[in-house]
Amino acid sequence: MARKLQGLQTIAFDLSPKIVGSATIAGPKEKKGNLAPYIDNLVPDPMLGEQTPEKAERKLLYQTCQEALARAKLTEHDMDFFLGGDLLNQIISSSFCARDLGIPFIGIYGACSSIVEGLGLGAMLVDGEYADQVLIATSSHYQASERQFRYPIELNIQHKGTSQWTVTGAGAAVLSTQGEGPRITCVTFGRVTDYGIKSPDIMGAAMAPAANDTLCRHFQDTNTSPGDYDLVLTGDLGNMGQKLFMDLAKEAGHTLGTKHMDVGATIYKPQQRAGAGGSGCACAALGILGYVIKEMYQGRYRRVLALATGALFSPLSYQQGDSIAGIAHAIVMENP
Amino acid sequence: MARKLQGLQTIAFDLSPKIVGSATIAGPKEKKGNLAPYIDNLVPDPMLGEQTPEKAERKLLYQTCQEALARAKLTEHDMDFFLGGDLLNQIISSSFCARDLGIPFIGIYGACSSIVEGLGLGAMLVDGEYADQVLIATSSHYQASERQFRYPIELNIQHKGTSQWTVTGAGAAVLSTQGEGPRITCVTFGRVTDYGIKSPDIMGAAMAPAANDTLCRHFQDTNTSPGDYDLVLTGDLGNMGQKLFMDLAKEAGHTLGTKHMDVGATIYKPQQRAGAGGSGCACAALGILGYVIKEMYQGRYRRVLALATGALFSPLSYQQGDSIAGIAHAIVMENP
Repeated sequence: MARKLQGLQTIAFDLSPKIVGSATIAGPKEKKGNLAPYIDNLVPDPMLGEQTPEKAERKLLYQTCQEALARAKLTEHDMDFFLGGDLLNQIISSSFCARDLGIPFIGIYGACSSIVEGLGLGAMLVDGEYADQVLIATSSHYQASERQFRYPIELNIQHKGTSQWTVTGAGAAVLSTQGEGPRITCVTFGRVTDYGIKSPDIMGAAMAPAANDTLCRHFQDTNTSPGDYDLVLTGDLGNMGQKLFMDLAKEAGHTLGTKHMDVGATIYKPQQRAGAGGSGCACAALGILGYVIKEMYQGRYRRVLALATGALFSPLSYQQGDSIAGIAHAIVMENP
Repeated sequence: MARKLQGLQTIAFDLSPKIVGSATIAGPKEKKGNLAPYIDNLVPDPMLGEQTPEKAERKLLYQTCQEALARAKLTEHDMDFFLGGDLLNQIISSSFCARDLGIPFIGIYGACSSIVEGLGLGAMLVDGEYADQVLIATSSHYQASERQFRYPIELNIQHKGTSQWTVTGAGAAVLSTQGEGPRITCVTFGRVTDYGIKSPDIMGAAMAPAANDTLCRHFQDTNTSPGDYDLVLTGDLGNMGQKLFMDLAKEAGHTLGTKHMDVGATIYKPQQRAGAGGSGCACAALGILGYVIKEMYQGRYRRVLALATGALFSPLSYQQGDSIAGIAHAIVMENP
């Protein structure tokens, strides 16, 4: 059973669900990037032989779910629930994946923060003994996102230096109290924070205040500070958003220094011309289920605070003059 | 603490979270329909003075959240989490509402089944003592949905007799173990079911198999039958889907007869020319949080099985030749 820290946003788990299996997949651009050694499956063709990027994304997601199940030595029949979400309208990647898996489906949407929303909710379901095992997964695809949120890539519209590059990939995790793996000991669900940013070309700036809000709330609720963690990971703030986040955190009294790493700012190399860095649901997923988990198994990190950030908008809300709000959800991952 | 019925999809709650406050809102078309006496707030202008239907939908949602909070004699500051979802791309109605409420946000997507997905998850959070109080809400808007999923209404495209009419409205509920109100005693999360329907003009048929799958699973898991409920409510199967659902249930050995009511098939009068009936996230929400709750307070119903159905597709998946899959989530509502 969990302890909800009274009147606060953070929940600490007593049973501490474990990530007993996880898998990551990504495409050729990610293969040339910095996180390639941490990604389980690097596919040479981002279309996976499919006719459309949407169908390719679905395939990435399904394959990764099966791989995570295999690594947990379980099958879809052992799962009580599948929690999935993605960036595509009506989260079709996740819905179709849920159809093919046949597991009772809890659809979620947290934009690029979806993986942590899913891990946090999934951890509750397992900790609360509502489920023995749950599967959580998310995906994104550069081409599918570009044409949905911006322009079809065939138009060759020039990217801005501050825009981010949607990661093509997926990540999946199996949570259970049985078995071995990093434990999820805490979750902090974030509030929607709006700093009035209106351009989808500077989403890092739209998300940085949300990341800082959740960071501060988490430290306050748990009475911890950066010194209590080996790593504070953020999802996809990118180069610009990362700087803003560090500044905001410092203003709030939290100096992160070298303990901080942003997946979006790290995933691509400068010569890859990916603007301000990576983004998309797969970005945080590759960071958490690829980089963090592997480094935890290697013994480099014992306790990690992972914050995934999301920009909450649609092309239509942007066209109607609405600002782009941000959200960040956080989990604490610990080695036994 | 809950009892998860081992190896099954249904969770029975021991603490039984109560719906301690709820509110519904709808527009002028719904005012002329059969459920008008059960809807708290019937607005004369479906645009609520806003320039776009998307902004109007957001306003419907926010106002209804505030009304539900007021009826529970609580404010947004008393809420631990807000669970919200809607049909618009990237669930912008819910995200912007969450921004304005300032409550930590768990975004969900279950198409028109969202209200029950939210109530089921929310009930878990309260039952598991992860939250003291949660707010759950959903919305839909005829004009916003038409132009997103079909055609802008200005084009005057003729509806088919089998198409459904998206309900303009919203519903919100506050769950807590403190206070009085109908209890949520069970939740059954559904699997995604695909019968190969490819036309968005016959969504009732796409959702009926999912409703039947969850119905059968619920009866099996809980060892109950239609005789154990005063009402079996479905969300928005409409006239066509309702008939298919009744047939499928009968084939599976469950004769529902007069115990069944579908909100979509009931909400509009035949002379309102709403095709096969109502649909949209607000449809099931008005049925459950309007009709069912009020009739429970009147003592007409003591135990209700409420199934909300959703069609899982996007205009793009439909254009790419994918079929329209369905999902249904169920809760049991009981008077003390």
